[in-house]
Amino acid sequence: MPRYKLTIEYDGTPYCGWQRTKDGPSIQQALEEAVFKFCGERAEIYCAGRTDAGVHALAQTAHLDLHKAQPPFNIMQAINFHLLPQPVIVTDAEEMPETFHARFSAVRRHYLYRIVNRKARLGLDIHRAWHVPYALDAARMQEAADHLLGTHDFTSFRDSECQAKSPVKTLDHLRIETHGEEIRIYTHSRSFLHHQVRITAGTLMRVGKGDWPAQKILEILDARDRRAAGPTAPPEGLFLTRVEY
Amino acid sequence: MPRYKLTIEYDGTPYCGWQRTKDGPSIQQALEEAVFKFCGERAEIYCAGRTDAGVHALAQTAHLDLHKAQPPFNIMQAINFHLLPQPVIVTDAEEMPETFHARFSAVRRHYLYRIVNRKARLGLDIHRAWHVPYALDAARMQEAADHLLGTHDFTSFRDSECQAKSPVKTLDHLRIETHGEEIRIYTHSRSFLHHQVRITAGTLMRVGKGDWPAQKILEILDARDRRAAGPTAPPEGLFLTRVEY
Repeated sequence: MPRYKLTIEYDGTPYCGWQRTKDGPSIQQALEEAVFKFCGERAEIYCAGRTDAGVHALAQTAHLDLHKAQPPFNIMQAINFHLLPQPVIVTDAEEMPETFHARFSAVRRHYLYRIVNRKARLGLDIHRAWHVPYALDAARMQEAADHLLGTHDFTSFRDSECQAKSPVKTLDHLRIETHGEEIRIYTHSRSFLHHQVRITAGTLMRVGKGDWPAQKILEILDARDRRAAGPTAPPEGLFLTRVEY
Repeated sequence: MPRYKLTIEYDGTPYCGWQRTKDGPSIQQALEEAVFKFCGERAEIYCAGRTDAGVHALAQTAHLDLHKAQPPFNIMQAINFHLLPQPVIVTDAEEMPETFHARFSAVRRHYLYRIVNRKARLGLDIHRAWHVPYALDAARMQEAADHLLGTHDFTSFRDSECQAKSPVKTLDHLRIETHGEEIRIYTHSRSFLHHQVRITAGTLMRVGKGDWPAQKILEILDARDRRAAGPTAPPEGLFLTRVEY
């Protein structure tokens, strides 16, 4: 069976997340139903990173197998037609060898976490960023972020429901940028624990606000306890921006 | 009466534009009603640039007079409270001398026009950009844009309903930038004719697509006829980003 890789953009706001669930609409279900409508095949779609409810993707990556081969461009156009009017769009499609797996072949996942740091609530960025009304010091946040780089036991930075076998991960990149009133947290690694990026954003917020010194990060890592870290930042600030293979 | 300057951000999608109209909700009406709810005064609000239906603002500027003086921060918070849940937000408020006028004192208006240039339709940028599916050449667009700089009779670039006395304007800045699959048109001037930025964007699109050579701009200016220029680009790509005084 020919295997196809899809690159997918979506607004996560109206969805319960990537994964099919009985609780409501999911991105996986939207895509699988669009595939069924265009070719009558009940294909399962596997993705690189199962985003939570409300989390967005600029370039999620997924794969599916079809019994009948088709030009990738036609597959993309047909899925997009049947997805209308939903805010889920296939932006690229490619045929791949059957050894390719969207999740297991991925070597690097890139995320962006957006904070709008101002007194006034959000207008144009509603559902697209986290609104933090107290002044944040981005330089302090970067100092704290630097302590997280490298290989650590990230137990304090994972959700209690995380199913990963090991809490040890290697964090390759964690960069804070300021753009006007916006603070952007860019990060990438081979893989992340459940809620790791959002707990990192919530913890860096506490440092930026001045509640904690940057070195507090070392204590939080040592504690190996979710309760030691900051809050889980809300989903609307998180974007899966790129997956490398 | 004390005069206050407001800086306002809004998502123009659900509005008939800035100006009060019988056709539906306007941003002016939303603001004036919020002012009435917080202090009982029927103040008229004047803005720097009356945006059309669907056009956004990151920093529209307006002024109003109140009988009773109040700290500007309180005015901002109270208006924002009464605007909820609408996507209109006062991001700054300042007391000004009564010689200040949001429209007549403005010396420079800055606009951004966003084009997303890709085959796939828009996902996260629905209502926030113009989707152009055919490849655009940004360098050609810049070459054409350069011909528009300076003082010209912009009759070909104004809407037939434009009420400005003279079609002669001086265009100070028109810069095309490429950011990934996005083409951004940045422009600023003392003032613009009705639909001037959108007709400029539509005309540059025709050049970028290869329908017209860059020098065609000179013919279009000479024609002094709206029909000589390109289409009026849709409102959702346009953002009023800043007003200088």
